[in-house]
Amino acid sequence: MPATFAHKTLSIRDIYEARTRINRIVRRTPLVFSHALSADTGASIHLKLENLQDIGAFKVRGAANKILSLTVEERQRGVTTFSTGNHGLAVAFVANTLGIPAAICISNRVPKAKVERIRRYHARVEIIGQSQDEASDHCRKLQSEQGLTIIDPFDDPHVISGQGTIGLEIIEDLPRLDKIIIPLSGGGLLSGIALAVKSIDPKIKVIGVSMKKAAVMYESLKAGKPLLLPEEDTLADSLLGGIGLENQYTFQMTKQLMDEVYLVSEEEIAKGMAYMLENHRMIVEGAAATCIAAIREHGIVQPGEHVACIMSGCNVDLSLVMEIAEKYANQQTS
Amino acid sequence: MPATFAHKTLSIRDIYEARTRINRIVRRTPLVFSHALSADTGASIHLKLENLQDIGAFKVRGAANKILSLTVEERQRGVTTFSTGNHGLAVAFVANTLGIPAAICISNRVPKAKVERIRRYHARVEIIGQSQDEASDHCRKLQSEQGLTIIDPFDDPHVISGQGTIGLEIIEDLPRLDKIIIPLSGGGLLSGIALAVKSIDPKIKVIGVSMKKAAVMYESLKAGKPLLLPEEDTLADSLLGGIGLENQYTFQMTKQLMDEVYLVSEEEIAKGMAYMLENHRMIVEGAAATCIAAIREHGIVQPGEHVACIMSGCNVDLSLVMEIAEKYANQQTS
Repeated sequence: MPATFAHKTLSIRDIYEARTRINRIVRRTPLVFSHALSADTGASIHLKLENLQDIGAFKVRGAANKILSLTVEERQRGVTTFSTGNHGLAVAFVANTLGIPAAICISNRVPKAKVERIRRYHARVEIIGQSQDEASDHCRKLQSEQGLTIIDPFDDPHVISGQGTIGLEIIEDLPRLDKIIIPLSGGGLLSGIALAVKSIDPKIKVIGVSMKKAAVMYESLKAGKPLLLPEEDTLADSLLGGIGLENQYTFQMTKQLMDEVYLVSEEEIAKGMAYMLENHRMIVEGAAATCIAAIREHGIVQPGEHVACIMSGCNVDLSLVMEIAEKYANQQTS
Repeated sequence: MPATFAHKTLSIRDIYEARTRINRIVRRTPLVFSHALSADTGASIHLKLENLQDIGAFKVRGAANKILSLTVEERQRGVTTFSTGNHGLAVAFVANTLGIPAAICISNRVPKAKVERIRRYHARVEIIGQSQDEASDHCRKLQSEQGLTIIDPFDDPHVISGQGTIGLEIIEDLPRLDKIIIPLSGGGLLSGIALAVKSIDPKIKVIGVSMKKAAVMYESLKAGKPLLLPEEDTLADSLLGGIGLENQYTFQMTKQLMDEVYLVSEEEIAKGMAYMLENHRMIVEGAAATCIAAIREHGIVQPGEHVACIMSGCNVDLSLVMEIAEKYANQQTS
């Protein structure tokens, strides 16, 4: 089940190669059984805890694979990226670990918490405009003027293969996997994981979940081509951002590999976050909670199925977590 | 470095044996690097995430090792225990997994959240009196009248060896370990881990941490014999409970194997919980936070040391977590 493009074919071998490249920087995360979700649905539901990565999000996998693939000269000139936060954090972390200069371009919509954390990894932070697309223009300027290499957040074969290592780990821990539920934004995470698991068995169902607000990939797939949509504030802020009008990889791969896609509301996302607090004492970001929301409110799993759900990260303002717990969590008895 | 008693010698071989026995029920938990604690102290500090066990606490290790060591007849008659919560949860979980009847005796001090969770594992819950000692009397009645086997929360060689498997995992993941920081109550966790790591290298420092309120082991060690102290409410409720006037194992082992012990205040524990929310987006119970408190407020680690800290569990009422976050956590910028 390789994905073939004009100048490149991506296969599961790229993902195995990514794993050998990134395994000294990236954590193999646990896949834990959710008694609560399984009891609620009759399915056997497992959570892949990417919130336990050093940066609190899966993005470190793709960033590490890309940066470790650069030439010595490219590394010395440095790297740059545009990002709604977690990818910026990932690039800063990997660059800092390897001793490479990094400039991170982000929009004003990115939560302050994430900006502070990027600075901890000694990266230069440049805050530009109101959307990821504006930040990406600035990034290209740094590339042409200073020779920095842009680390794309999702539309890059190395980034896709890096995220795909999650799929290998899940198959190894849960060989009977029937269905996998993945937060969907630019499609890098979904494309990589889908390539891994469908190469093992094309019958494994791949489900994408986006938030109703600004579901760019969803609308683009409906239109048959990449669209540009205005960004709105959402709890799943790490799913914000366009897919790029010049999208080369993830649009086609998502179209080819995703079986179903669901959209969830802001309230459903908030309830998903509250559910994780109540039942797993775990703080997850809105993007991860979209999967919980899809399972709980959209009936997307069937009794008896073996399901994995990607808990993509935990980088969320504590004040927001507390608001949601106050409003939606049963605080006494769970 | 075996520990020798009247009728029994405990060694690291018992811990290896425990591991082969429990590994289909118990999770090998990740040891994660804490950037925040390491930056604060100059040491290299790692957190052992026992909060990720199925029941949200390490206690499943000892309970599994004990119950899997019973004869077929003993298993058929069933098991019982007294517990401040996590051990009861562990026995209920293991018994349910193996299809064995279980009766859990607990005091009125145990948080309602824990009682509800024990019931989810289909165990009979008996709520008795105001202290763990009263609950333990009731337990002995069930033993003599109904032939149930008591699963002791800590003072049992199999339970100690089960908890000791944590020590093996830490040494394998962090061979350069200099110091290990362990919540101290009845001493089962500390005795098991200390036996494991000091058998590998007696120079590894073992530090116990209890809460100032009702530090029974601490006072008993000072007095040179097990004492009975009144229980008080504390944030570290899973550290509540006496060590038993007839203590056979953990008093002697703690005395022999523990290098230092620290007591922390309720406020220090609350700040430790807030620190974990802020810096790791992780909910931990008060007992786990005693370790953070000892590091942050008592200067117990030195720059350059390789340190492991046991995050013993996450079973804490959400309302308490929110109160503490409100009061102590910087909610916006971390």
